[in-house]
Amino acid sequence: MQKSQKIAIVGSGLVGSLLAIYLKKEGHTVHVYDRSPDIRTIQFSGRSINLAMSNRGWNALDGAGVGDKVRHIAIAMEKRAIHIGNQLNFQHYGLQGECIYSISRGVLNRKMIDLAEEAGAEFFFEQKIWDVNLTDATLQMGETERGEWTNVSYDMVFGADGAFSRIRHRMQRQSMFNYSQDFLNTGYKELHIPANPDGSYKLDKHSLHIWPRGKYMLIALPNLDGSFTCTLFMPFEGENSFASLDNRQKVEAFFAENLPDTVDVIPDLAEDFFKNPTSTLVTMKCFPWTYSDKVALIGDAAHAIVPFYGQGMNAGFEDITILYQMMQEYGNDWKTIFSEYEKSRKPDADAIAELSYRNFMEMSTKTANEKFLLQKKIERWFASKYPEKWIPLYDRVTFSTRPYSEALAIGDFQETIMQEILKIENIETNWETEEIEHKIIQLLNSK
Amino acid sequence: MQKSQKIAIVGSGLVGSLLAIYLKKEGHTVHVYDRSPDIRTIQFSGRSINLAMSNRGWNALDGAGVGDKVRHIAIAMEKRAIHIGNQLNFQHYGLQGECIYSISRGVLNRKMIDLAEEAGAEFFFEQKIWDVNLTDATLQMGETERGEWTNVSYDMVFGADGAFSRIRHRMQRQSMFNYSQDFLNTGYKELHIPANPDGSYKLDKHSLHIWPRGKYMLIALPNLDGSFTCTLFMPFEGENSFASLDNRQKVEAFFAENLPDTVDVIPDLAEDFFKNPTSTLVTMKCFPWTYSDKVALIGDAAHAIVPFYGQGMNAGFEDITILYQMMQEYGNDWKTIFSEYEKSRKPDADAIAELSYRNFMEMSTKTANEKFLLQKKIERWFASKYPEKWIPLYDRVTFSTRPYSEALAIGDFQETIMQEILKIENIETNWETEEIEHKIIQLLNSK
Repeated sequence: MQKSQKIAIVGSGLVGSLLAIYLKKEGHTVHVYDRSPDIRTIQFSGRSINLAMSNRGWNALDGAGVGDKVRHIAIAMEKRAIHIGNQLNFQHYGLQGECIYSISRGVLNRKMIDLAEEAGAEFFFEQKIWDVNLTDATLQMGETERGEWTNVSYDMVFGADGAFSRIRHRMQRQSMFNYSQDFLNTGYKELHIPANPDGSYKLDKHSLHIWPRGKYMLIALPNLDGSFTCTLFMPFEGENSFASLDNRQKVEAFFAENLPDTVDVIPDLAEDFFKNPTSTLVTMKCFPWTYSDKVALIGDAAHAIVPFYGQGMNAGFEDITILYQMMQEYGNDWKTIFSEYEKSRKPDADAIAELSYRNFMEMSTKTANEKFLLQKKIERWFASKYPEKWIPLYDRVTFSTRPYSEALAIGDFQETIMQEILKIENIETNWETEEIEHKIIQLLNSK
Repeated sequence: MQKSQKIAIVGSGLVGSLLAIYLKKEGHTVHVYDRSPDIRTIQFSGRSINLAMSNRGWNALDGAGVGDKVRHIAIAMEKRAIHIGNQLNFQHYGLQGECIYSISRGVLNRKMIDLAEEAGAEFFFEQKIWDVNLTDATLQMGETERGEWTNVSYDMVFGADGAFSRIRHRMQRQSMFNYSQDFLNTGYKELHIPANPDGSYKLDKHSLHIWPRGKYMLIALPNLDGSFTCTLFMPFEGENSFASLDNRQKVEAFFAENLPDTVDVIPDLAEDFFKNPTSTLVTMKCFPWTYSDKVALIGDAAHAIVPFYGQGMNAGFEDITILYQMMQEYGNDWKTIFSEYEKSRKPDADAIAELSYRNFMEMSTKTANEKFLLQKKIERWFASKYPEKWIPLYDRVTFSTRPYSEALAIGDFQETIMQEILKIENIETNWETEEIEHKIIQLLNSK
């Protein structure tokens, strides 16, 4: 148990709430601020992508002793269900039957705040934090940015306030603060597949459904009530874009032509399409993440990523795991806790940002590429024959808690091997042979 | 002549002042704001690197008809003077006797403000702009950020307020605004070589003096009064760093050991070293640069680069050349002027940022690399034999007004050729041969 500190967390999202639970476990006083109303008292916004919880997320929840309380609001997805035309193909996730878990962001956030309150954290909603004094961890809050502000001082402040963090905004104005924000030209929109009248699911419940189409893509993840939350990813401008689908008729014709098997299951398509906002996708990187022993960024406030690896929340939760390790190791020396946390975690945050961005590029440019599909086939074939020699990159990211940076490095090595293999003459027809097997093993050993 | 507009320029630096002259030429009302006092009334800050004006800069000045007024405060530098140990080597710049021109930033800035006032621009100093309303080009100014503000409206606003631009700061808070700032771990400090008592120069006047030392480097550029402005580039931390040189004795011993021929010419070394600030070096990129026909960023506010190619001011001035071309082409259609300006200029700003950063990396890692020195030797030899076939990258950047992005692309092509050449067996001894000549020509033609 550490010396008790008075700690403010800015942001009552998933990471802020879980961090509150960890800090309460250590005996600290924890105040959580959020500019929005209590999410438990309002409707969800219609702009979220369902979460895919995987090992890193569960690991962090279990570390706080709340994993089992979340498991019963999660739905196991054991496979991808790939919709092409009217055809459906299933791809199982891990080679060992591993699953990822669909959870509604709103449902999980409500649960996490309940759990943090049970642990003793105090929540202050509709409190707008406009600035923070870095040297003495003083929050400055008030009704409006230009109005009267009240100051409240803490021993330390965590910025868990997301990709557009106010706390980070203050840190950005220091010298030597590295920062980048990069928006994709692709946005997303939430759509909805309701349950059948009897509460059953209109599509296979234990699948993550994907309609891959190159530049655009639809996904659907199951909810507890029999419905699915769908997300349409699509360019803002150009052919087949949010800009081009500018009336009901065009939207309905587009779905009928390009996503024919969704027509029967998304009854309110055009209504949802024009009611729900079109949201942006941003990669945000920065460094440093901490200021002395006073202020630290965590989760999306430190590293926002695009959602194409399903790792945003998992990475944010794993930040807490790492921070907690440092707390165990360095006791009351918060300066060292903070500096070791950022030093240890930054390369992994950069790695998952890179992997998530690459997945977006792969989806938009390579899904129809013959060589790429062949490569994936050869990898799967070899990995199933030699599971101890070839753990696919997806599995390293999703079903392991080894550092993301290690997954990226090994993934790149595997990629160079596959590029060699693809150069072999007649590989298209000869890949399922002992010769190729030996060649891959030889290349693996050449490292 | 365009329809007269009421235009505000935020920032009275080099780019702001030159832009004011161009806009006055077109008959606009021009108000220039700066948060600092009039530079003509104060001492310079001791934190600037002397400017190296080259073709792009002169081209922009001549376009406004003020080139000749600047030429008499500039000193031609026809060569690099490279100080290694107590040895001095000269490297002439262009193959055709081209020069770059040393100008003190303060002297030039004073002159540019004089010239802009003569052209009819009005300057408002010590006016702090805190925010701008993008939709109606309204500046918000006042004594303090949290105090009373006054609003002043314009037809359009230019942000020429440098790397830490307030105008850009507002644009950053829009969605879909891409932004990055990256600080080097190397900083810089101004030092001073005074004139001899008789006003003569202590070092060769028509040279840019360089003391290359890998991780750190000293340069000296001549001033009109017989002095030189020196800049020491050095890591902030580690061995041979600003942090390690923490007292007079260490500074003096360091210079005596590593820069022995500077000891006699920098008399106030330790005093200057501790009096002058250590400044940071940042690369800043963003996009978009404009908002409708209301607000545009220009110069460092749009693209701040590290100074290792001597192109910061030249690139900022060239922005104005391009903007002016668009004004000529699109008349009163400022929406198109702004969007064509940013579209045309962004790839070139990115290219010079990349080239400047590469020069930093080259200096810190490659200057002692045998292969790299051999490569430079072969390039120079071939270029002098075939000046029409091989214009070195430095010359394309410095002595041409072709786009930076073209220089970067051709430079990369030349680099792949040289990498091929360096692979040839015994190239170290055989490079000055007809065989190599033919090989280079063959590779050039293979494109």
